[in-house]
Amino acid sequence: MSADTPGQVKKIVIVGGVAGGASAAARARRLSESAEIVMIERGADPSFANCGMPYYVGGEIESRDKLLVSPIERLQKRYRLDVRVRQSVERIDRVNKQVEVRDLVTGETYTESYDKLILAPGAAPLRPPLPGIDLPGVHTLRNLDDADRLLAAALGAKRAVVIGGGFIGLEMAENLVRRGIQTTVVERNGQVLTPWDAEMVAPIAAHLKGQGVDLRLGDSAEAFEQQGDGLRVRLSSGAELDAGMVLLSIGVRPENALAADAGLEIGPRGGIKTSPHMQTNDPHIYAVGDAVETTDAVTGEPTQIPLAGPANRQGRIAADHIFGRDSAYRGTQGTAVVGVFEMTAAMTGLSEKACARDGVAFEKVYLHPASHAGYYPGAEGMSLKLLFSPSDGRVLGAQGVGGEGVDKRIDVLAMAIQAGMTVYDLEEAELCYAPQYGSAKDPVNMAGFIAAGVLRGDQPLTHDPPTENAGVLLDVRTPGEFGAGAIEGAINIPLEQLRDRTGELPQGRPIVAYCKVGQRGYMATRLLNQLGFDAVNLSGGYSTYKQREQAAALAGEE
Amino acid sequence: MSADTPGQVKKIVIVGGVAGGASAAARARRLSESAEIVMIERGADPSFANCGMPYYVGGEIESRDKLLVSPIERLQKRYRLDVRVRQSVERIDRVNKQVEVRDLVTGETYTESYDKLILAPGAAPLRPPLPGIDLPGVHTLRNLDDADRLLAAALGAKRAVVIGGGFIGLEMAENLVRRGIQTTVVERNGQVLTPWDAEMVAPIAAHLKGQGVDLRLGDSAEAFEQQGDGLRVRLSSGAELDAGMVLLSIGVRPENALAADAGLEIGPRGGIKTSPHMQTNDPHIYAVGDAVETTDAVTGEPTQIPLAGPANRQGRIAADHIFGRDSAYRGTQGTAVVGVFEMTAAMTGLSEKACARDGVAFEKVYLHPASHAGYYPGAEGMSLKLLFSPSDGRVLGAQGVGGEGVDKRIDVLAMAIQAGMTVYDLEEAELCYAPQYGSAKDPVNMAGFIAAGVLRGDQPLTHDPPTENAGVLLDVRTPGEFGAGAIEGAINIPLEQLRDRTGELPQGRPIVAYCKVGQRGYMATRLLNQLGFDAVNLSGGYSTYKQREQAAALAGEE
Ligand SMILES: Cc1cc2nc3c(=O)[nH]c(=O)nc-3n(C[C@H](O)[C@H](O)[C@H](O)COP(=O)(O)OP(=O)(O)OC[C@H]3O[C@@H](n4cnc5c(N)ncnc54)[C@H](O)[C@@H]3O)c2cc1C
Ligand SMILES: Cc1cc2nc3c(=O)[nH]c(=O)nc-3n(C[C@H](O)[C@H](O)[C@H](O)COP(=O)(O)OP(=O)(O)OC[C@H]3O[C@@H](n4cnc5c(N)ncnc54)[C@H](O)[C@@H]3O)c2cc1C
Ligand SMILES: CC(C)(COP(=O)(O)OP(=O)(O)OC[C@H]1O[C@@H](n2cnc3c(N)ncnc32)[C@H](O)[C@@H]1OP(=O)(O)O)[C@@H](O)C(=O)NCCC(=O)NCCS
Ligand SMILES: CC(C)(COP(=O)(O)OP(=O)(O)OC[C@H]1O[C@@H](n2cnc3c(N)ncnc32)[C@H](O)[C@@H]1OP(=O)(O)O)[C@@H](O)C(=O)NCCC(=O)NCCS
Repeated sequence: MSADTPGQVKKIVIVGGVAGGASAAARARRLSESAEIVMIERGADPSFANCGMPYYVGGEIESRDKLLVSPIERLQKRYRLDVRVRQSVERIDRVNKQVEVRDLVTGETYTESYDKLILAPGAAPLRPPLPGIDLPGVHTLRNLDDADRLLAAALGAKRAVVIGGGFIGLEMAENLVRRGIQTTVVERNGQVLTPWDAEMVAPIAAHLKGQGVDLRLGDSAEAFEQQGDGLRVRLSSGAELDAGMVLLSIGVRPENALAADAGLEIGPRGGIKTSPHMQTNDPHIYAVGDAVETTDAVTGEPTQIPLAGPANRQGRIAADHIFGRDSAYRGTQGTAVVGVFEMTAAMTGLSEKACARDGVAFEKVYLHPASHAGYYPGAEGMSLKLLFSPSDGRVLGAQGVGGEGVDKRIDVLAMAIQAGMTVYDLEEAELCYAPQYGSAKDPVNMAGFIAAGVLRGDQPLTHDPPTENAGVLLDVRTPGEFGAGAIEGAINIPLEQLRDRTGELPQGRPIVAYCKVGQRGYMATRLLNQLGFDAVNLSGGYSTYKQREQAAALAGEE
Repeated sequence: MSADTPGQVKKIVIVGGVAGGASAAARARRLSESAEIVMIERGADPSFANCGMPYYVGGEIESRDKLLVSPIERLQKRYRLDVRVRQSVERIDRVNKQVEVRDLVTGETYTESYDKLILAPGAAPLRPPLPGIDLPGVHTLRNLDDADRLLAAALGAKRAVVIGGGFIGLEMAENLVRRGIQTTVVERNGQVLTPWDAEMVAPIAAHLKGQGVDLRLGDSAEAFEQQGDGLRVRLSSGAELDAGMVLLSIGVRPENALAADAGLEIGPRGGIKTSPHMQTNDPHIYAVGDAVETTDAVTGEPTQIPLAGPANRQGRIAADHIFGRDSAYRGTQGTAVVGVFEMTAAMTGLSEKACARDGVAFEKVYLHPASHAGYYPGAEGMSLKLLFSPSDGRVLGAQGVGGEGVDKRIDVLAMAIQAGMTVYDLEEAELCYAPQYGSAKDPVNMAGFIAAGVLRGDQPLTHDPPTENAGVLLDVRTPGEFGAGAIEGAINIPLEQLRDRTGELPQGRPIVAYCKVGQRGYMATRLLNQLGFDAVNLSGGYSTYKQREQAAALAGEE
């Protein structure tokens, strides 16, 4: 019997000992008490909480030990792993099934044989070749050594510049502010959190500013210079920023060198290619985590999404397959969440941008429900955007931004996507309801109602106010709301009076109705259309309109 | 064309104007601007938040107006409904398609014709014919008049007795305690919240006691007597309780009299029978909400579950069907949540009791995950129980008890049940993860891992420690944990030492391993079984064991 037979796998070598690697190792041990499992980690710490590091730097997580999810001793004793830290795998010899390892402390190298090799090397922060990028004050954040350095820098700094307004950039900005540091975030795009659609995260940008963050969208770092103790960052706009520390968080690239050198297949975005069993084109070599290319679970297209959940599950699947279970990875949906001060942004599946990029036909609706019943104290508002297939109603993606309860709704919608459910299924979702937790018609039901109404033709909507003279813009809110701010060119007839005042509507021109969030606007369109008018509803109402304006203004700050 | 053709439905009469009735009315108006919609409500207020009433009595909701979700004026103006309050529908004349209405203020009656009639009369609190049950101090809570009376009573009371430890009983107990009232809860069963399994809600009972509630399980009220200003409640145990007020909350029965008198089909539990379109056996009469029998979405059996979400959605479906849309109700899953002081209990689908009752084959697993990553401050513990099909892994039901994040996981699992997903799907669920919100392996994934492990034969488990001499009970926790409390008869070998100390295990006898929550116990079984022992894991570990003991002790207090 060859080592391909699960019972015969005697030795597994794992490259990388954190999310994907440690998960694979732990699962492999549970599946085989007899296998020799060697886990080789280049850094000082295996199995640490990468995702907690920003909060350690900010002091919210007080003890560094908390970040050591499974300390070495436990990995050795509980999982009987041969853990080697500060050792780096430098080369794979596929023919002889062995790897070359360098001990980073002694500098010595040795070879280690394997029956099965699992690559879990993760992804490295991007470091573009800008002048001064290698100055000691220009940090990246990947491992605990980085976190220690960042913490030390933060304790001394008055001003910081964060380059990149993604998850890590925004989490770090929050934590630097928590340390009392004047923080600037520089983001090349016209929005923060680029996986989301711009209008959805415009309130996050506003919130950052409200917390004192100096947010610079549409700008990017061009050079770094030492200035006394600190650094000067030159931006492409010409602006210059002085800071005690700089964090570079503009993205990551798969650590594919080992794999590429060994002739393993690499995808166009740099990720190692694998089968759904996480097997590379060499059946004795698996690859998992941030280093691999996966499949977009919605479109089936290749994608690259560096998140901890996928890395953990892929590690488990690789171990499963090695030991004869046929677990398979289903692709990544891109379910993600980030806390930014008091706000939460979450998403799952395709964004509008992704639909446009991949040519996926979609329809979208916006809503602004409360986290729980409005009559119970403490309800917080949120914005939801649902993307769905115009042909069969399949849920394609969802985004939520707000406070309490955003993560819950996105998790529920993530399940809907995984199950291939439609907006009609959302209408009938039966979710927890008591006043502290939700509403009798949960935001998820509400999203389903609206979307299903669109598909049934009951809820005609638009995403843009009519261009001048092309139609009538009808604001159906109260005069008080209207007076406090309205879309230019709108006439105001409150919903409650509309039936009696249809005579005031200009004849023969299409009507775009709107209210604060879309609900009264919808009711207005229902009655107008039945009375013979041609009316559509502005989805998400004035709230979404303002978010879109806000997003445009932010992008225009370039 | 007959009135069966949607366009020809000119007049709808709705009996009951709250959750189901008002939802039907509102949807009907959106679908037909021209229909005459008459909504007849016996009480003083239509469209109010029943579910908020306990918190109004307790003062958490300060203003009574907050409970008026859609005040009459809005129902008239926005939805153009003909709302008639303090009027009661007394009889249905199916032949002439008209109802007899009594004006409760004037005492006059009149008839009202309909093209379609929607019955949404709800359910009435049970009032068994006990001596003294009609004394003025014996309250029930169904509408705002009741709430006003309860509030007035609460403001004067020092002691209260709540009969019935269901949702409403426990919510009211919390709110009476909030008012500083010494509160006793009397519950006939040996557990609170009977839809849940006893061991899951034992911590809720303990929490109630911890908050000063005098909880009396396995006892019931037999008689009420006036005692000066107050009442004396005699219990079947012989105990006598004096109180300023009594709340009777022992359940509800469908208000089926109108329907039954009109010869509409009634189910064995008293609910009006309908099609999935909410149509009764008279095609011109629909029925929705607490008054109807529905189908259990998991088993397909008839059931009766009085909840607001189903009532709202059924009302919408009835209106849909009247106006030619073929929306259909899919049955009720029984997704429910209740807050009890700082704790949350939530469930969806079948309980173990329900499986046993309906003869549904099931397997179950317990786990005790944290609400979010343990390394981030503020994580709260929860207990989860997952029920699934032993043949194909389909999720049958789930229960969660704890603090933060319980409702989220049950909502996610509710979607899984709706979609017919399996425990293998839970393994691959891709949910939101950042340290404040969840874990890289979310509790839902974890439940999937454990359950799938059971089905794959990788995770043999038991729910009972071995009876004396039938096996070895092995505690794999640390000596410190073991010393602080262990299951009788257990020997202690910490997981970390187990590989070296297998020699200490008695030969030839099956082993039951356990730890605090089940995870180390599982790892112990993995290694023991591969080393030739016969080991199973005690699901949920010492924590579940203690909950079961707690539940047994509570039930034994009868
Ligand atoms: C600051 C921060 C915050 C994050 N927050 C979140 C979050 O909130 N939610 C979320 O889902 N994800 C988050 N992530 C991403 C998440 O941590 C990663 O997706 C996940 O850790 C990837 O797992 P992995 O095993 O592929 O790689 P890693 O966890 O990065 O592990 C790879 C390891 O391999 C080692 N290695 C590489 N090459 C070699 C070699 N040749 N020899 C030996 N060892 C090698 C590296 O030293 C590294 O430790 C965050 C990441 C960071 C940095
Ligand atoms: C205190 C309390 C707390 C609750 N908490 C929750 C919770 O947290 N979550 C949850 O999901 N559910 C909860 N519920 C249950 C929920 O309120 C009901 O399931 C829901 O209201 C049922 O809707 P319905 O339309 O069938 O009946 P109802 O809302 O009760 O409305 C029926 C109405 O019909 C009227 N009526 C009856 N007969 C006639 C007649 N012949 N003529 C005219 N009018 C008539 C009645 O006066 C009544 O107002 C709670 C209920 C109560 C009482
Ligand atoms: C911790 C670590 C070493 C992996 O360990 P692991 O044992 O695979 O994972 P967990 O500790 O989550 O435990 C999951 C296992 O315990 C089992 N388990 C959990 N609770 C259980 C219970 N109550 N009863 C029985 N089994 C249980 C699960 O079934 C699963 O086993 P399986 O995979 O064989 O089915 C690895 O995930 C790691 O290093 N993580 C930290 C790094 C990281 O993830 N970083 C990114 C996020 S910050
Ligand atoms: C409020 C009440 C009168 C019903 O009104 P309703 O209009 O059907 O329900 P909602 O206010 O929830 O609104 C839902 C409708 O608005 C639409 N809507 C909501 N937000 C929208 C938005 N942003 N854009 C467009 N449409 C929107 C939905 O699509 C839905 O319309 P549809 O059914 O035609 O698809 C009724 O539910 C009621 O009386 N409730 C209180 C009593 C109660 O439920 N008690 C028990 C719980 S405490």
